Amino acid sequence: MDFRIEKDTMGEVKVPSDKLWGAQTERSRNNFKIGPAASMPLEIVYGFAYLKKAAAYTNCELGVLPEEKRDLIAQVCDEILKGKHDDQFPLVIWQTGSGTQSNMNVNEVIANRAHQLAGKTIGEGDKTLQPNDDVNKSQSSNDTFPTGMHIAAYKKVVEVTLPGVKQLRDTLKKKSEEFKEVVKIGRTHFMDATPLTLGQEFSGYAAQLDYGIKALENTLPHLGELALGGTAVGTGLNTPEGYAVKVAEQIAEFTGLPFTTAANKFEALAAHDALVETHGALKQLAVSLNKIGNDIRMIASGPRSGIGEINIPANEPGSSIMPGKVNPTQCEALTMVCAQVIGNDVTVSAGGMQGQFELNVFKPVMAANLLQSAQLIGDVCVSFDEHCAQGIEPNHARIQEHLNNSLMLVTALNTKIGYYKAAEIANTAHKNGTTLKEEAVNLGYLSAEEFDEWVQPKDMVGSLK
Amino acid sequence: MDFRIEKDTMGEVKVPSDKLWGAQTERSRNNFKIGPAASMPLEIVYGFAYLKKAAAYTNCELGVLPEEKRDLIAQVCDEILKGKHDDQFPLVIWQTGSGTQSNMNVNEVIANRAHQLAGKTIGEGDKTLQPNDDVNKSQSSNDTFPTGMHIAAYKKVVEVTLPGVKQLRDTLKKKSEEFKEVVKIGRTHFMDATPLTLGQEFSGYAAQLDYGIKALENTLPHLGELALGGTAVGTGLNTPEGYAVKVAEQIAEFTGLPFTTAANKFEALAAHDALVETHGALKQLAVSLNKIGNDIRMIASGPRSGIGEINIPANEPGSSIMPGKVNPTQCEALTMVCAQVIGNDVTVSAGGMQGQFELNVFKPVMAANLLQSAQLIGDVCVSFDEHCAQGIEPNHARIQEHLNNSLMLVTALNTKIGYYKAAEIANTAHKNGTTLKEEAVNLGYLSAEEFDEWVQPKDMVGSLK
Amino acid sequence: MDFRIEKDTMGEVKVPSDKLWGAQTERSRNNFKIGPAASMPLEIVYGFAYLKKAAAYTNCELGVLPEEKRDLIAQVCDEILKGKHDDQFPLVIWQTGSGTQSNMNVNEVIANRAHQLAGKTIGEGDKTLQPNDDVNKSQSSNDTFPTGMHIAAYKKVVEVTLPGVKQLRDTLKKKSEEFKEVVKIGRTHFMDATPLTLGQEFSGYAAQLDYGIKALENTLPHLGELALGGTAVGTGLNTPEGYAVKVAEQIAEFTGLPFTTAANKFEALAAHDALVETHGALKQLAVSLNKIGNDIRMIASGPRSGIGEINIPANEPGSSIMPGKVNPTQCEALTMVCAQVIGNDVTVSAGGMQGQFELNVFKPVMAANLLQSAQLIGDVCVSFDEHCAQGIEPNHARIQEHLNNSLMLVTALNTKIGYYKAAEIANTAHKNGTTLKEEAVNLGYLSAEEFDEWVQPKDMVGSLK
Amino acid sequence: MDFRIEKDTMGEVKVPSDKLWGAQTERSRNNFKIGPAASMPLEIVYGFAYLKKAAAYTNCELGVLPEEKRDLIAQVCDEILKGKHDDQFPLVIWQTGSGTQSNMNVNEVIANRAHQLAGKTIGEGDKTLQPNDDVNKSQSSNDTFPTGMHIAAYKKVVEVTLPGVKQLRDTLKKKSEEFKEVVKIGRTHFMDATPLTLGQEFSGYAAQLDYGIKALENTLPHLGELALGGTAVGTGLNTPEGYAVKVAEQIAEFTGLPFTTAANKFEALAAHDALVETHGALKQLAVSLNKIGNDIRMIASGPRSGIGEINIPANEPGSSIMPGKVNPTQCEALTMVCAQVIGNDVTVSAGGMQGQFELNVFKPVMAANLLQSAQLIGDVCVSFDEHCAQGIEPNHARIQEHLNNSLMLVTALNTKIGYYKAAEIANTAHKNGTTLKEEAVNLGYLSAEEFDEWVQPKDMVGSLK
Repeated sequence: MDFRIEKDTMGEVKVPSDKLWGAQTERSRNNFKIGPAASMPLEIVYGFAYLKKAAAYTNCELGVLPEEKRDLIAQVCDEILKGKHDDQFPLVIWQTGSGTQSNMNVNEVIANRAHQLAGKTIGEGDKTLQPNDDVNKSQSSNDTFPTGMHIAAYKKVVEVTLPGVKQLRDTLKKKSEEFKEVVKIGRTHFMDATPLTLGQEFSGYAAQLDYGIKALENTLPHLGELALGGTAVGTGLNTPEGYAVKVAEQIAEFTGLPFTTAANKFEALAAHDALVETHGALKQLAVSLNKIGNDIRMIASGPRSGIGEINIPANEPGSSIMPGKVNPTQCEALTMVCAQVIGNDVTVSAGGMQGQFELNVFKPVMAANLLQSAQLIGDVCVSFDEHCAQGIEPNHARIQEHLNNSLMLVTALNTKIGYYKAAEIANTAHKNGTTLKEEAVNLGYLSAEEFDEWVQPKDMVGSLK
Repeated sequence: MDFRIEKDTMGEVKVPSDKLWGAQTERSRNNFKIGPAASMPLEIVYGFAYLKKAAAYTNCELGVLPEEKRDLIAQVCDEILKGKHDDQFPLVIWQTGSGTQSNMNVNEVIANRAHQLAGKTIGEGDKTLQPNDDVNKSQSSNDTFPTGMHIAAYKKVVEVTLPGVKQLRDTLKKKSEEFKEVVKIGRTHFMDATPLTLGQEFSGYAAQLDYGIKALENTLPHLGELALGGTAVGTGLNTPEGYAVKVAEQIAEFTGLPFTTAANKFEALAAHDALVETHGALKQLAVSLNKIGNDIRMIASGPRSGIGEINIPANEPGSSIMPGKVNPTQCEALTMVCAQVIGNDVTVSAGGMQGQFELNVFKPVMAANLLQSAQLIGDVCVSFDEHCAQGIEPNHARIQEHLNNSLMLVTALNTKIGYYKAAEIANTAHKNGTTLKEEAVNLGYLSAEEFDEWVQPKDMVGSLK
Repeated sequence: MDFRIEKDTMGEVKVPSDKLWGAQTERSRNNFKIGPAASMPLEIVYGFAYLKKAAAYTNCELGVLPEEKRDLIAQVCDEILKGKHDDQFPLVIWQTGSGTQSNMNVNEVIANRAHQLAGKTIGEGDKTLQPNDDVNKSQSSNDTFPTGMHIAAYKKVVEVTLPGVKQLRDTLKKKSEEFKEVVKIGRTHFMDATPLTLGQEFSGYAAQLDYGIKALENTLPHLGELALGGTAVGTGLNTPEGYAVKVAEQIAEFTGLPFTTAANKFEALAAHDALVETHGALKQLAVSLNKIGNDIRMIASGPRSGIGEINIPANEPGSSIMPGKVNPTQCEALTMVCAQVIGNDVTVSAGGMQGQFELNVFKPVMAANLLQSAQLIGDVCVSFDEHCAQGIEPNHARIQEHLNNSLMLVTALNTKIGYYKAAEIANTAHKNGTTLKEEAVNLGYLSAEEFDEWVQPKDMVGSLK
Repeated sequence: MDFRIEKDTMGEVKVPSDKLWGAQTERSRNNFKIGPAASMPLEIVYGFAYLKKAAAYTNCELGVLPEEKRDLIAQVCDEILKGKHDDQFPLVIWQTGSGTQSNMNVNEVIANRAHQLAGKTIGEGDKTLQPNDDVNKSQSSNDTFPTGMHIAAYKKVVEVTLPGVKQLRDTLKKKSEEFKEVVKIGRTHFMDATPLTLGQEFSGYAAQLDYGIKALENTLPHLGELALGGTAVGTGLNTPEGYAVKVAEQIAEFTGLPFTTAANKFEALAAHDALVETHGALKQLAVSLNKIGNDIRMIASGPRSGIGEINIPANEPGSSIMPGKVNPTQCEALTMVCAQVIGNDVTVSAGGMQGQFELNVFKPVMAANLLQSAQLIGDVCVSFDEHCAQGIEPNHARIQEHLNNSLMLVTALNTKIGYYKAAEIANTAHKNGTTLKEEAVNLGYLSAEEFDEWVQPKDMVGSLK
């Protein structure tokens, strides 16, 4: 392999000559061989690209960076955002907890690529841009990494999570409408209970997602606050006057998202409660989706010896040994994602609680877990929606059979003959394996005609607005 | 021991004759000997007292309960709320997951106590009130228990948690003002960094709590929605027209809190995402408080061989073997509470994710954990505030010593001589055990006068608005 | 209220005159008003009683404590262990994280009670025993509290948890024997699958508990190691030669349990990985029990519109609104306990991971959570066993109905006609709502006789040894 | 793009013609677009390769598979194990929870590759091997996937985790020896305490890892049990007599690891408590490592205004803004891994607790989390060892300065003058900012000579065996 020499304040480092990165990236590659390479999410690199460009513009506007340098930085950032340098970010999550090395990775790639754009050869001649003095001007890893991760997280939530959850929510709402007159048995404690409609059941699922969407949206203002301008410890040392506000405005403009400068930069560096907050809402969605996915798996169970009240699409052969088997595989992918997100929430908390003094040094692990959760929830909602929810159909025969069998229809008699006599009817029918009507009449509490008038499942499900 | 016979739909049960409870409570006492007795939180019993009274009023107004019965129910509820019957609720959390037995415990106590208030002897004569047909009228355990737990949780959050956190937040803000000109060394990665003021450090803590308070308040609208009116499965079976809305209004009036009827009763019975949501915010506060408590422990460490930049109150002898030792015991109580709350969050999620069909049957464990977390956070904030935070004082001598030693003051030179030369100065001083100034001059990068002008800690902390 | 004056190294404190405790206990009561009073588990106090007595005996044997003092200390410890002073330990979990105040609570109660036993009045005359110099001789909170919590935890595990789990395991094994020839449909992915016996199903549950028991027992050696003898930081300062080994032997003798002195006292004070380890096994049991409890709830579901293949005891009326309803309430208590334990595991980890230098100061919260989990698992297994598992009976009619309906019996044909033709038979029967046999013959893949010979559920369940 | 047609029991599917996989893999690719492609760990694919080969040998030996087919299967498995087909396994974790599709992916690749090895073109002519009838013979996804994941997990633990942890443990032990006479101040509650040696401190860390290694090894017997032979529901349907035991022996032979057949196949399919158990031990290691990493970060803090008692290697420039800064980056990578593993533990529990009936359908997520945790812990221990632990050196000057300052040396006087007078000396010295010796003499409790004789840090650290 071919190498060139790169330098940093600690000395010389050999770097593969076909790579844009520099000394510090290479040190990190060698010092942190932990898990798969390049595990630092690219979304964070892109977040850096936005902020480096915004910093260059702001520095220029405030008179501390010349236009030529601004334009070179911006040009490389645009290339990065187009995905042209994805293979130039080989670092892992499990590096320094401030993400300094990923910040330097970006600084080095921008500086070296700018050198190329300036028509020179990397490693030859004076550096066109200095990674620290130019690309990182008015910045510190301590404020850039949290800014990069907020940009990445915010974008992921609004571009992947929320659209995915809303798509599924809309389908569940639509199904709730479609099924609004399908009266079926209710189940509480997994035991037969009074009836409701299949539409009402689905309306509960849709409502869960409505609350989850709102809870997630509630966290966006905090997530939209950017640390940039705090530099090393939150004081804004080495930034020009007015920088923090302006650079956030630039980022808002470049991303089209309502980012603002963090109200308190000390909090923004030393704590990542915004990630804890947003992930808390993702975890709430996971809790909701787990209930929904498990319910649908159970309602669809069978085909002959389960609950079987709905049919779900058969997407693939279900078994390598049992011929003809079809399984609720989308429910399984969904609930597995929920398990992941619920665990990730603890990881995010474990990171968030251990900040010390002016810096939380669990940034990469917190950000990576949030990005994974946000992606998985968004993706799995779409997958579940398209390959399962949209295709759900009632199995009317089965629904009718269960409904008619139910002893809990007796509840309709509470207001006619009281709870205690109603209980006697149900208990007797259960013991004798008979129907409610037979026993109601046998016990002499009401006539067959009264039974038929009073015990009507469709009258027991409330208003179907 | 003396007993009387009580009956339910399953038959006769012997109940201690001095107790107000009835057959189902006694069955539960015998069937669930799990952990300490009476572990079901009294706050939930009080929540039931509010809702039973509200239901009686609403039933009466809607014409399905006579005034005499309403008044008897209301009278017993008021007694319960005054704490007169605290020993009549012997059940445990680890019962049926719908809390049916605690609902029946309340129904039975109200019915039997009403019998006494009507001048009769329990167990003799026709029952003045029927537990199921009268006290539980227009209700089911499935909508009362979630209503009781929402009332209890909401009250705890607004009466204990929020006031406690705000009290501590206010002190931290005040300290931040007090210490606003105390320039000190910053620390990132637990290593010496550029300076900030002690006030800025504390402003970060106050900001964390500000965000936490807002996050907790964001969850209150969902928590303020009540399931009552859904009855068995959410359809409102056996409730009179208009009942759900009115009964929530009554509860709002009796509690003085903005409760509303749940928008979707199916969600309100089958999912407890509102508890998941509120507990998520409590967990966020725990994450924040853990950082704050740990920081203060570390900043106060010593007295001679630690960081030692602040003094905290000495409340008690710290050691049974080391004479004269004083410890940051309030920090320890605080961080232990945080560990509890972070674990409780997983319990609440584990309960929330496992609802099935029309009912979540992890209600008691979810509610009990939320109430514990909300109480502990409120209490510990007050304790920490009164016995620690209010008494925090800077140790100026130590602060000055650390500040002057710091090699990171060199950062002020970045904008004068560039990052790379500045690094050389710091590295040389570190290697030689000398001062920055000595090496700056030795290396010929600046004069002693320039150093004194440019490297001024107080100029490195930004604006102190 | 009546008070007396007690002193410690910080000065005077007023203590209620009817209480045995002294100055430091009273300070703690006032400084830590967090959650319910007296939340520090009594089991830990009893653990202290064992160790204080053992320390007195060892100190005496090694010549540093006179016999009279030894006997007084031992006499009070015996009283404490008989439960005579339970109300003298008013402190909370949320105190100093070393448990120093609970150690002093015990020291003070022993010293004051000894004064009484010596015929004197508390607060008058020279102290018969000094809390620190006599009762706490050769000890520190830092080694006594972990010793007390290991004693408490070990006893709880062997006296409550293991017997409870084994009792349930034995019942499940017995049921597995009883049901060994009850052939039923299997379910994978909650979908109909090939048959097995009900006994085989239950053998899986019993096996889960077997593994859990073994995993829990594997943790006992570490839990049986005692920190006593390490004193303040693990070095054993101020202990006589040979003390650590002897005092552990004394504790082993007094408790009848195989306690040993910790191999490394620094680990024993600074880390509580033994609690993490034991709780990890409790969590594993919770995971297993959750599966078992949920399965039994589902298999028993119905009575008419669920799975309904077993009947479980009806212990109480299940609904306050639905007459005659019976619910799987023991399953619900069981799975709620599991949710608690799974959350407690995170609390224990959060405490364990945050030790600093020579001391972990999350001792009370870690110990309290472990004791709660160990108690709840033991209790709930007994409750579930006695009120549910022992009474489980197969519902043969239902089992037969489901078995005969199953399309997955087709799997028996794989080895006769291949997976692909078998799948065709199953798919066709599913589509047409017919039987496997009809379609097998229609498709011409085998004769009716062959079908009857080859597709025999009882031949599909393997050997029933 | 070029396609060929593949078929399964549901019909035809277009597959890229350059790929070895078949219809079901392609269906899964299209149905589960969730998170990054090919996220199913390759280790599991390799686990499958071992078991498919072992099944082929066993089937052949038991007379149900011809030698030619056995040899073809074995040949492809060997190719897979050499990494020649890594790009043929494009599926994700978030598929069916039984891993059926990954099982079929392996079956399809083996069948198609065998067709090539037989000199034919994929998609042309009769299939050389049938994916289900030949490659999957005597198997089901339900027993193969858990077998594959046990093989993968066991190998990872013994090949990566244990060697990594042991390497670090050995270094810590060595350091403990090296530093055994370096007397330093102890710290409890992060406050100055009595002295110990730096070696003793490190011995505690080594002891933590010793316990963790033992705990992890305790879990290996359960993890070494293989489900293979249970087929669809645990009964072993469609396997030849003696198959389960023999196939486990084959796997043991091929892997060189002590795998055995699971004692209870129902447990082995329906529960994955073995993964819960092993991950519990990984979590314990994470708890230990977090303490160790955080301690070392704190002991090394400074360089001038922290604790500073040890020096750790400076591996890279620590800050993009603060010149000359060096940070404890390996500690940060280490503690971030711990946060990940502690969260993963909850994911594994959340999966484990939700098995239903004869199958747990959270297999992929459980396995993937365990593999990640096992890899990360092993890798980070090596990284931390090589780039940090091995290079740790005491900072003797700083250690001496802290030791001499400590007021807690007064503890040595407890046994000479009693706790209470000793406390008075310490308190007075603290108040006056003087030394213990000065105040001891001033207060008249002992002479200067006695002080010098009695208060000797090196005599306070116990035996240094």
